[in-house]
Amino acid sequence: MSGRRRGPSTTRQQILEAAREVFADRGVDGTTREIAQRAGVDPAMIAHYFGSKGGLFQAVTALQIDPADVIAPVLDADASDAARQLLTALVRTWDAHASVLSAVVRSATRNTVLAGQVRTFVLERAVRPVVTRFSPDDRIDTRAALLASQITGLVLTRYILRWEPLASADPDWVVDHIAPTVQGYLTGPLPDSPAGR
Amino acid sequence: MSGRRRGPSTTRQQILEAAREVFADRGVDGTTREIAQRAGVDPAMIAHYFGSKGGLFQAVTALQIDPADVIAPVLDADASDAARQLLTALVRTWDAHASVLSAVVRSATRNTVLAGQVRTFVLERAVRPVVTRFSPDDRIDTRAALLASQITGLVLTRYILRWEPLASADPDWVVDHIAPTVQGYLTGPLPDSPAGR
Repeated sequence: MSGRRRGPSTTRQQILEAAREVFADRGVDGTTREIAQRAGVDPAMIAHYFGSKGGLFQAVTALQIDPADVIAPVLDADASDAARQLLTALVRTWDAHASVLSAVVRSATRNTVLAGQVRTFVLERAVRPVVTRFSPDDRIDTRAALLASQITGLVLTRYILRWEPLASADPDWVVDHIAPTVQGYLTGPLPDSPAGR
Repeated sequence: MSGRRRGPSTTRQQILEAAREVFADRGVDGTTREIAQRAGVDPAMIAHYFGSKGGLFQAVTALQIDPADVIAPVLDADASDAARQLLTALVRTWDAHASVLSAVVRSATRNTVLAGQVRTFVLERAVRPVVTRFSPDDRIDTRAALLASQITGLVLTRYILRWEPLASADPDWVVDHIAPTVQGYLTGPLPDSPAGR
């Protein structure tokens, strides 16, 4: 740790780097104490800069991925190609950042605050804009939830539970096999449903 | 705790009851020490009867649900109705045991041993038999993984992340909206895919 500067912005950066490593290794089980130790800073600095471990988690993720960047090419796609573009963006992004993203999902399943942040991050900033862009009707909430159910399940099966052949399949294979479902949820007919929930 | 018998089978039962409560409250974060305390037994008894917390978890789940029972009516369905029957069985079972099953999923996302047990439980004892029964071709592994991706995502979205409108929707609504996807993965055409993975 010798030679590291201790100015405010450097401290913040050190915490982020340490947190990225610790979260990637151990998910949210990595403690703030452990992160502070690896960063060579006082644990109080984590509260100072990030408020909580959840805030730090979000900062670490946001550091690497902005949902708006990921979905930008999707929003430019033809409606008939939207599902393929969305899945391609998802799989490429996840393949490139698998360890941190998998840690986020693991943690969100048992931390309700983080689950809310993931919902905001994924649903509001990625899924909903895509659905709003391509939906042929006003059933945005329904289409978004259906889309989320397939996409989160793909993530869970491929990256977390690692079920074959999905876990090792090429991105193209994944897109070929899942796109029809996603396209249906985005632009296909939905069943008439009482109460329209 | 006074008046409780300490015979072997009673001890086992006390541990199971305590574990069911603790796991439902806190997922796998519930410690063996906590479970032993609630059961009024020595923690060593948990190791004695169940080997590990993972073994205990599996016993708690198996106590309530046998996948073979859940899928029995599905295996008797017409092929064209298989997806609706499978989803109905899944949603009814989960709605009735939501707290323990959600705890299992939360824990499986961060415990690789438990994830393996869930894979066996879900994939080998529920998904694969259904796919084997209804698949029109020999692409059992592919259909099973695709089916798992939609079913696990439904579970994650409805029960764990609790995204609306899926979280509060009636079982019939869920079946109506997800069954076409599940039916497609079970019996529909699959894309030709290099390497057939």
